[in-house]
Formats: sequence, structure tokens, C-alpha cells
Amino acid sequence: MNPFSDFRAETVAALGEQKLIACMRRWLGRVSPAAPAGMGDDCAVLPVPTARRAPLVTVDPVIYGEHFDDAVPPREAGAKLLKRNLSDIAAMGGRPSAAVIALALDPRTRLDWLEEFYRGLAAVARKHDLPIVGGDVATHRGGIVATLTLIGETTAARALTRTGAKTGDFIAVTGVLGGSLPSRHHCRFTPRLAEGAWLVRRPEVTAMLDLSDGLAKDIHALTPAGSSPLLFGEVIPRRAGADLRAALTDGEDYELLFTVRGGAPAAARLLVEWRRAFPRVPLTVIGQLAKRGTPLAGAIDLSTYAGFEHLKS
Amino acid sequence: MNPFSDFRAETVAALGEQKLIACMRRWLGRVSPAAPAGMGDDCAVLPVPTARRAPLVTVDPVIYGEHFDDAVPPREAGAKLLKRNLSDIAAMGGRPSAAVIALALDPRTRLDWLEEFYRGLAAVARKHDLPIVGGDVATHRGGIVATLTLIGETTAARALTRTGAKTGDFIAVTGVLGGSLPSRHHCRFTPRLAEGAWLVRRPEVTAMLDLSDGLAKDIHALTPAGSSPLLFGEVIPRRAGADLRAALTDGEDYELLFTVRGGAPAAARLLVEWRRAFPRVPLTVIGQLAKRGTPLAGAIDLSTYAGFEHLKS
Repeated sequence: MNPFSDFRAETVAALGEQKLIACMRRWLGRVSPAAPAGMGDDCAVLPVPTARRAPLVTVDPVIYGEHFDDAVPPREAGAKLLKRNLSDIAAMGGRPSAAVIALALDPRTRLDWLEEFYRGLAAVARKHDLPIVGGDVATHRGGIVATLTLIGETTAARALTRTGAKTGDFIAVTGVLGGSLPSRHHCRFTPRLAEGAWLVRRPEVTAMLDLSDGLAKDIHALTPAGSSPLLFGEVIPRRAGADLRAALTDGEDYELLFTVRGGAPAAARLLVEWRRAFPRVPLTVIGQLAKRGTPLAGAIDLSTYAGFEHLKS
Repeated sequence: MNPFSDFRAETVAALGEQKLIACMRRWLGRVSPAAPAGMGDDCAVLPVPTARRAPLVTVDPVIYGEHFDDAVPPREAGAKLLKRNLSDIAAMGGRPSAAVIALALDPRTRLDWLEEFYRGLAAVARKHDLPIVGGDVATHRGGIVATLTLIGETTAARALTRTGAKTGDFIAVTGVLGGSLPSRHHCRFTPRLAEGAWLVRRPEVTAMLDLSDGLAKDIHALTPAGSSPLLFGEVIPRRAGADLRAALTDGEDYELLFTVRGGAPAAARLLVEWRRAFPRVPLTVIGQLAKRGTPLAGAIDLSTYAGFEHLKS
């Protein structure tokens, strides 16, 4: 669906800001609390935290022409905006607590397009009992940029960062990789929140991220100095139709990539308990962090694969 | 300064995402903490709150062609992005604690333009000891949309919302109004953080907002059902060169508008103590919330003035 119309009565410009905000609140339904806990004041006032948990914050947009196009139903584009951010919270082992949305909209944006976008987003927010507490709508001739900031908190005594891994740690990944765009996984994925919160409580899990720019690129963010990742092509879990190159370099997998300390016994124990906790989510050990300079001996030469690079023209 | 160049070597596309993020960290300097407290992980991890203060959150963008153009130095555009949001925190009587920035950038965006934008933003952040803890950079062919989400906290037992006023309360405003665009006040203003934090501790102050769409429009947000605001034209403080219409309808004043209970004695006491606390910031009582239907008797007929309406094409 093309988001724009030249017939003014069909567009957001016909409503103006005040009525548009009233519509958004209606579309969001019960995940739009009353001000000042929600939209309508200068800031949203969040509840005073009860437990001593560290706040988490992340921000990601969806942009027309970049993250979605006319082929993506607006409901899926809206869902994607929230899920991209939920995936970042999942990657720390956290849980979401509140979100704000800034919309930069061409005045020709169709109202029915925007309604579907919001209803898609609201359905995901409801599933996670996540209030949308505020936002902003601004005019942006020529485009649609929707930016969501997600606030969350840790679910355990720690957050699972990208920097805890050491040489010798095993490398594991959830789900299957590659072909996110053709399969529409990039809109239809489920953020791995429950899985992330489970992993953060396992002390043998040492570092984690969510795959967004392709395994071949993102693995480097988990690799400490002096290490180099040995990944084995035949065990890398691939989506139906995706070859090894796609599994290594396609972006938007939104799966959790993490490292496990304690060698094969620890990895085997983790796999067994994972299967009990998440019987329908694949978990695969795909390699190990070796000492830098270790011969590849059948492992993938990652230097021949590049992940998604942003901002290249 | 025009933000775009067709000479690739001058643009963000020549660097790509990774190097660009390294530049941003350098431009931000000491307000860019190391991950996971700052950029570089899936989320930023904020310090566990010590006092039992309610978190505040607000989001506002600056958009090329809407909030700034080639006539605005990029340093001022960057400063404006942060100050717009600080003004919202000020309007609750809060203080800022962390910010994240999402940039949607045309690949032709000039690197030197972006550096100035960031240095302007960093200077404001330093003044408030405010860490920029994370962000996102995405490609957006045809535009620049910079969205900042600001997290803060209350400085008192309450936040000062828009909804506490009652019929009979006096109406007061800081600074002078109108002519924000021609005077470049819209880029050069100082957010009223100290003033907001002072006002939130005064129990006679019942409701507050920061003026962004013009007094004639924004006053309605402080006006409870059954009331109507009587404003007196001759006392409304105007910027040099601004007439009454400009003072009532121009946007982007970024001054605090608030209500005071207790009649003339309370308002007079507040004015005296204000002058001691903020000798260089004007404070003016401009009217009163009267019972709906009270004859205007010299007060302004607000129905003949409209403030800035967003999203009208």
C-alpha cells in the first residue's frame, strides 16, 4: 500500500495535529494511558521504580523506502517498528517498560495507512503490556520517518552486554538465519524476549547481541581482542531457501547470538535445558572463539563475507 | 549552510556507519560515556536510580526544511534539538538525566555539516552534564530527521503537569513572547530548567507548560473545563519588534506558562521572590482563569487568534 494520497480529504493534513493525536490514542487503545502517564503533557511521568533494576534504553526507526516500502502492509511496518526495539531489549536480557514515538510525516500521508500502522504497533504493545507513553508528530515533506524509543529494565542482577566473551567460549545462535527480506521475516519475526531473559540468568552465557546486520559482520562485536571466531558452515542454521552466504550476510535476522563458557559440557547442558524451556525455538552451537591466528581448518573465512553496511550510497 | 554535497568524499557516505559513529563519539567528547553506559551495545544501561524520583520522558525532532534550513548554522540546529527537549523537562519541573539520538540522514549529508551539528548539541549537553547514551544512524534519501529522546526525573515530590489549574488562578509567563523566528530566539533560547525546578517547589503554582505553539493556542491546555482565560494585551511581555498578534500566535517561545493559586497576595509574593532568585528573567502576571461566560471587559478575545497548527498542508 502506498502511504500517500493527493486527495487531501484522505490525508493526515485534513485532520491536523490535535485530531490526529486523538485518533492515535484511539488506535492504540488500552496501551495509551491518560496523561501525565501517557500522551498529552510536556513529558510522560513514569511510575517510580520499585525494584533496584538498571534502566535500559534503545532507539530505532522505520523509514519509508529503507525499512519498508509499498509492498509491506502498514500493519506489519508498525509492528516492525516496535519489534526492532524489543529485540534490542531482548539482547540485554531485559524487559520493556515504556515507549515513545516520534512521527515525521508528509502531510499527504493517508489516514487509513497510518491507522493500520498504529494498529499493527498496538497489537505488539498489547502482547507485551507495554504502554506507549508519549510522542510527537511533525511535518516532513517528502517522507515518513517513525522513530521509537524503548525504555526497559534489567530482569536480573546484570545486563548481558556484548563485551563479556573470552577466547575458548562457544558461539550459539537462536532460530534460523538468512533470507529475512524475501521471507518477510523482517516484519513477522517474534522478538526473543523470553529467551533473552532466560539466558541472562545463566552465568555460563558471557555476551549477547541480536543479529541485525548479518552474522559475518555482527560476530565481530562479540569477539574480544586476541580472539577470532571459528564458525562452521555446515551447522549454521539456515532459513528454507537461504544459502550459506545469505545466512552469513543478510541483515534483519533478529535472532540472539551469544557466547557460552565452560566448553562442550556446559554447552551440552545448556542445549538440553533450552529444549525443555523453548521446545519450538532452535538453538545451535555454530563455532568457538579461538586464539587469533588459529588455522581455519574447515571454518569459514569471514573476511570474504561482508554484512550490511549502513549509509553507503 | 546547505547540509548536502554531491561530492562523495565530503559526505557521510564516504565514511560508512562504523567510522561515522566513531566520529560522533569524538564530537560529543565527555558527554559520550563508554558502553554499556553509552553507545555501542544493543541498549544503553543507565545507573540504578538512587532516590525515589519518577522518571520523565519526552521526544522531539528537528527536521530539515521544518525546524531549520540553510540559514541556520548547523551548530544552532544541533543545540536546538537538545534544547527543545530540555524545555519539556523544564515544564514539568524536572532535570534531565540521559538522551538518545536517532539520525535519519541522506547519504549526501556533508560530514562538516554533521560535525557542527553534533558540536552544537554537545556544548548544550556539557552545560547540563547530560550523557548522550545511545542512538541510531539510518539512511534516509532526501532528508534529515534528527530525533532526540530525553529521559529525566522529577526534582520534587511532584511533577508540574498541565492539569492542576482551577477557576480563579492567576496566569503568569516567563521571558518575552513573539518574534522567535526573525530574532533567531528559536535556536538561541535557554531552556528554563532552573526556573522550572524552582516553580515546582512552590505549592501555589498549580499547572505549567512550555510555550511552543503560541500563547493563544497553548493557554487552552492549562484551562480547566468551566473556565476561560482572561488575558490582558497591554501587560503581555513582547520581544522587541513583536506586536500583540506575534506575542499571541508565534510559535517556539520556549517560555514557561503557569498558573498561581491564592489571588493577588500569592502572586505578588511569588513575583518578589522570583526577582530575588532570577533577577534577569522577566516574570509577568498576564491574566486570570475566569468562570466561563465572564464578560471579556477589555481582555483579549482569543477566538480571533490561532496558534501554530502542525501538519496543515
